[in-house]
Amino acid sequence: MTDSTFDILDTFPNPKIKRDFTINIEIPEFSCLCPKTGQPDFAVLEIDYIPDELCIELKSLKLYIWSYRDQGAFHEAVTNKILDDLVAKISPRFMSIEAKFNVRGGIYTNVTAEYIKEGWSPS
Amino acid sequence: MTDSTFDILDTFPNPKIKRDFTINIEIPEFSCLCPKTGQPDFAVLEIDYIPDELCIELKSLKLYIWSYRDQGAFHEAVTNKILDDLVAKISPRFMSIEAKFNVRGGIYTNVTAEYIKEGWSPS
Amino acid sequence: MTDSTFDILDTFPNPKIKRDFTINIEIPEFSCLCPKTGQPDFAVLEIDYIPDELCIELKSLKLYIWSYRDQGAFHEAVTNKILDDLVAKISPRFMSIEAKFNVRGGIYTNVTAEYIKEGWSPS
Amino acid sequence: MTDSTFDILDTFPNPKIKRDFTINIEIPEFSCLCPKTGQPDFAVLEIDYIPDELCIELKSLKLYIWSYRDQGAFHEAVTNKILDDLVAKISPRFMSIEAKFNVRGGIYTNVTAEYIKEGWSPS
Amino acid sequence: MTDSTFDILDTFPNPKIKRDFTINIEIPEFSCLCPKTGQPDFAVLEIDYIPDELCIELKSLKLYIWSYRDQGAFHEAVTNKILDDLVAKISPRFMSIEAKFNVRGGIYTNVTAEYIKEGWSPS
Amino acid sequence: MTDSTFDILDTFPNPKIKRDFTINIEIPEFSCLCPKTGQPDFAVLEIDYIPDELCIELKSLKLYIWSYRDQGAFHEAVTNKILDDLVAKISPRFMSIEAKFNVRGGIYTNVTAEYIKEGWSPS
Amino acid sequence: MTDSTFDILDTFPNPKIKRDFTINIEIPEFSCLCPKTGQPDFAVLEIDYIPDELCIELKSLKLYIWSYRDQGAFHEAVTNKILDDLVAKISPRFMSIEAKFNVRGGIYTNVTAEYIKEGWSPS
Amino acid sequence: MTDSTFDILDTFPNPKIKRDFTINIEIPEFSCLCPKTGQPDFAVLEIDYIPDELCIELKSLKLYIWSYRDQGAFHEAVTNKILDDLVAKISPRFMSIEAKFNVRGGIYTNVTAEYIKEGWSPS
Amino acid sequence: MTDSTFDILDTFPNPKIKRDFTINIEIPEFSCLCPKTGQPDFAVLEIDYIPDELCIELKSLKLYIWSYRDQGAFHEAVTNKILDDLVAKISPRFMSIEAKFNVRGGIYTNVTAEYIKEGWSPS
Amino acid sequence: MTDSTFDILDTFPNPKIKRDFTINIEIPEFSCLCPKTGQPDFAVLEIDYIPDELCIELKSLKLYIWSYRDQGAFHEAVTNKILDDLVAKISPRFMSIEAKFNVRGGIYTNVTAEYIKEGWSPS
Repeated sequence: MTDSTFDILDTFPNPKIKRDFTINIEIPEFSCLCPKTGQPDFAVLEIDYIPDELCIELKSLKLYIWSYRDQGAFHEAVTNKILDDLVAKISPRFMSIEAKFNVRGGIYTNVTAEYIKEGWSPS
Repeated sequence: MTDSTFDILDTFPNPKIKRDFTINIEIPEFSCLCPKTGQPDFAVLEIDYIPDELCIELKSLKLYIWSYRDQGAFHEAVTNKILDDLVAKISPRFMSIEAKFNVRGGIYTNVTAEYIKEGWSPS
Repeated sequence: MTDSTFDILDTFPNPKIKRDFTINIEIPEFSCLCPKTGQPDFAVLEIDYIPDELCIELKSLKLYIWSYRDQGAFHEAVTNKILDDLVAKISPRFMSIEAKFNVRGGIYTNVTAEYIKEGWSPS
Repeated sequence: MTDSTFDILDTFPNPKIKRDFTINIEIPEFSCLCPKTGQPDFAVLEIDYIPDELCIELKSLKLYIWSYRDQGAFHEAVTNKILDDLVAKISPRFMSIEAKFNVRGGIYTNVTAEYIKEGWSPS
Repeated sequence: MTDSTFDILDTFPNPKIKRDFTINIEIPEFSCLCPKTGQPDFAVLEIDYIPDELCIELKSLKLYIWSYRDQGAFHEAVTNKILDDLVAKISPRFMSIEAKFNVRGGIYTNVTAEYIKEGWSPS
Repeated sequence: MTDSTFDILDTFPNPKIKRDFTINIEIPEFSCLCPKTGQPDFAVLEIDYIPDELCIELKSLKLYIWSYRDQGAFHEAVTNKILDDLVAKISPRFMSIEAKFNVRGGIYTNVTAEYIKEGWSPS
Repeated sequence: MTDSTFDILDTFPNPKIKRDFTINIEIPEFSCLCPKTGQPDFAVLEIDYIPDELCIELKSLKLYIWSYRDQGAFHEAVTNKILDDLVAKISPRFMSIEAKFNVRGGIYTNVTAEYIKEGWSPS
Repeated sequence: MTDSTFDILDTFPNPKIKRDFTINIEIPEFSCLCPKTGQPDFAVLEIDYIPDELCIELKSLKLYIWSYRDQGAFHEAVTNKILDDLVAKISPRFMSIEAKFNVRGGIYTNVTAEYIKEGWSPS
Repeated sequence: MTDSTFDILDTFPNPKIKRDFTINIEIPEFSCLCPKTGQPDFAVLEIDYIPDELCIELKSLKLYIWSYRDQGAFHEAVTNKILDDLVAKISPRFMSIEAKFNVRGGIYTNVTAEYIKEGWSPS
Repeated sequence: MTDSTFDILDTFPNPKIKRDFTINIEIPEFSCLCPKTGQPDFAVLEIDYIPDELCIELKSLKLYIWSYRDQGAFHEAVTNKILDDLVAKISPRFMSIEAKFNVRGGIYTNVTAEYIKEGWSPS
């Protein structure tokens, strides 16, 4: 996975920096390619985060997600990669990502990863 | 966002001030305008609170919610603004607000913020 | 709200007094009148309790609930009143009541109150 | 209801004019004002049509629907008005509109109207 | 059942008299009394009609429905009575009423009746 | 199956004999015994009928249904037997019965039978 | 597909031969093998029939269905084969079979076939 | 309630005695009689347990459950009785039983009781 | 839309050519590009057909569907194009296609088209 | 149960070994045989695990699951056996397995077992 897509992501300042509040984002239209077979994979992404100084701008997030459409990506790796990218961009207090992939071979797979900022804990 | 709407909110005395009890209010008809594009946004609001000395009068809450209909409002900011207004009005022991916005660009966004009165904890 | 209805409530001895067990009662047919407008209000009641020496007899509970049909009752007050009445009658180890009122003016309201007997804690 | 909004509607040529096929459009975000009380009303619109020479362009339909946001409109009248406008614009072989309004005063109202072109019948 | 409630019903002129269109009304809050036992009964009413020259005004319909709250009424009789009253008031081209009563003695009962104006048939 | 239970069924006069209207009765608590194994069987009964001069009294229907609790009964036979009994008792214009039996051996069975009075057809 | 399994099917006499009534059978546990890859396939079978002189005995139907577990079977062929077998065994007035196969390669397939006895038509 | 039914229950050795694992059993077909009125009562039973040295054999559990079919049993008492019987038979590390009774008089009742072996706590 | 993808489609002989039976295929993973904006579109395809001499081979259908992933395609045109391609390939007795597109701009669009072979009618 | 199937399982290196993240796998197509009666059993398997150095390769997991198709297996034993096999293969930080078996004799059974690596605890 190339990192050029990382630059697509845009941010804006947290409008209530003093308060721990949660932003939940559901993206039902994630699609990438299976690195082994080249066939399309589909997933629903659930992102939850508590912003620190920055929030993710949604239009840029949409473009970032689309950039995976022609990339080969393993389930476990791509979920962790998206988490790493978003954390690198906005350094949130907390973030979790769940990727719920469509059935393949009679098997459904969800991958969930989370990040907690060092020194932060739920107030 | 102007603050004139704040005065619309009315209150009544908590009928059981000695007990921590919870009032849950669901408002499926919140609508405001996107500050960037001017297009209507829609959300379902979920408000939970434990009153202290005052409760929110529901008819005035309805008018307060309608007052956003012609205002531009970012998702993250407006959720925190409503929480701030309601807390300023009735000073509850606890309050949380979840705003579940309709899909835009294939993305669903929920924003959740909460307030806990200093010195209060669940009995 | 008059207290004559209180006498309708009947009880029977807890058949397993040594064990903390839970009785959940759902009453989808609660109806009273709005004290301001006189219009009928409807709610679903959810009652959970851990009995001590007495249990609520269900037929008498049905009659007690019907007695509100012609009374004016505010959401927050009537929920706490029912909890107070039932607690006074059977002195349970734990009781909670949730009243889920039908939509009015585009707003749904639930009120939840609970009681814990002094000196009792979950085993 | 002024007719200026009618001009917002745009069209494009039917790509398969020889075949009777159906286009179903669901718009969950219709909002107007109650002419009596001025309070916001909300509805889900379901539009089904079989195009003749023209189809409705969706972005212009969205703008047309938004144009009702600040207009007073009775349920029965506005549903028939939207049907009349769309029929006048694209002269379809068949069109039906169902407007499902949110609950008011404990009552849900749906209004359904349809148009069949003279001389056309289901093949 | 006294007929005084009949006068509560109000009407307004059909805004699109040339077209057969359907108005569907759901009333989840119908309540009356069982003539045998005096206990409250509850039902959801579904009314569908195609107006001729008059439509039912909804606020007056709400009051008409409330007027049954303290009347004894058998399931089969009350459904036909409401149909008769509404037909007498607005003389519609078509009307059907379904009354879905809450469970009693482990049995659910729905009663459905309909009226078709002499000389009218679906266009 | 003995016929003594047939006498339990009671009737009352149709309150609107001039109109074809439908009474739907759902009984989720039918239980009988499997004639081969003696094990309990469970079914949901759905009865629809258009009364002629008589209606089924619900309390007697409940007792009639209970009378099967200790009888052996094959799925196909018992459904037709209940239809025959009810038709013999009230001679309706139309009646249908669907018996939806619980799963046995990984197989779900529904049996549906209907009766139409000679000379009657839907108006 | 060998035909030895055909002999497993057992029958019993229709208890109400004078009436056209319907027996619906749902079998959620059909499994066979893909003839190309050897991998297990799974389907839900829905069988509807109007018996003539004979009904299918359910226990034998269960055994008949299990006999496919180790056979290779294409979706379209096996559905028609089961219909042919059951028709040959009981010669019903009407029978339909729907086989709803589990997703394979992101695609769901249902196959539906029906049989109508010559000279029979719905009464 | 006689205790003869207790002997019906059969057991088998826990196949993984070193591990705390959970067995959940849902029985949608529990039926007994109301001791006051003699009318049938129906409930769904949910049993969860962590076995120690013995597990409940399911066929015997089915017979044990059927043995209540002709017994009078109060909701609160019968739930505790079943828990006592099963605990006496297999002495589990943990067991809970929830009995969800069908609606009676417009009221739904669930009774939940649990047992924890002395000296055992969740690992 | 280039026609090269048409050659991907493969067929096999109808195993029961004497009977009109139906094959239903659901494809939840259709994706193409919006010709105006280049952004990904997503749809669920529902295909129903009654085969004549040929059936569609499912693996080749999957590849055919994937071939749209990088093509620009208007909703109305692409639905009719897929129907035309499949009809040209297998000349079925009947075929219908419904394409249910994901929400865009708060609007859901479904397009449904069908084909009936000349001289064929439902038996 | 023979252990030859154990060798089918394949693994790949954890792509993010520093982070505790969760992989959820749902397999709706588990089937084995009842050791007592030889009849097919069906279950849905839910597997959750936090990988340490290795992840389970999904295609090999599918083959491993299929290998139970012709084996006799008791509910409680087979769930623990699958957990033991997977733990032995990839030595995860955490793993739980829930097997939800289809109804038999009117009883639904779920078995849930979990494994926690010594020395590991949720971060």
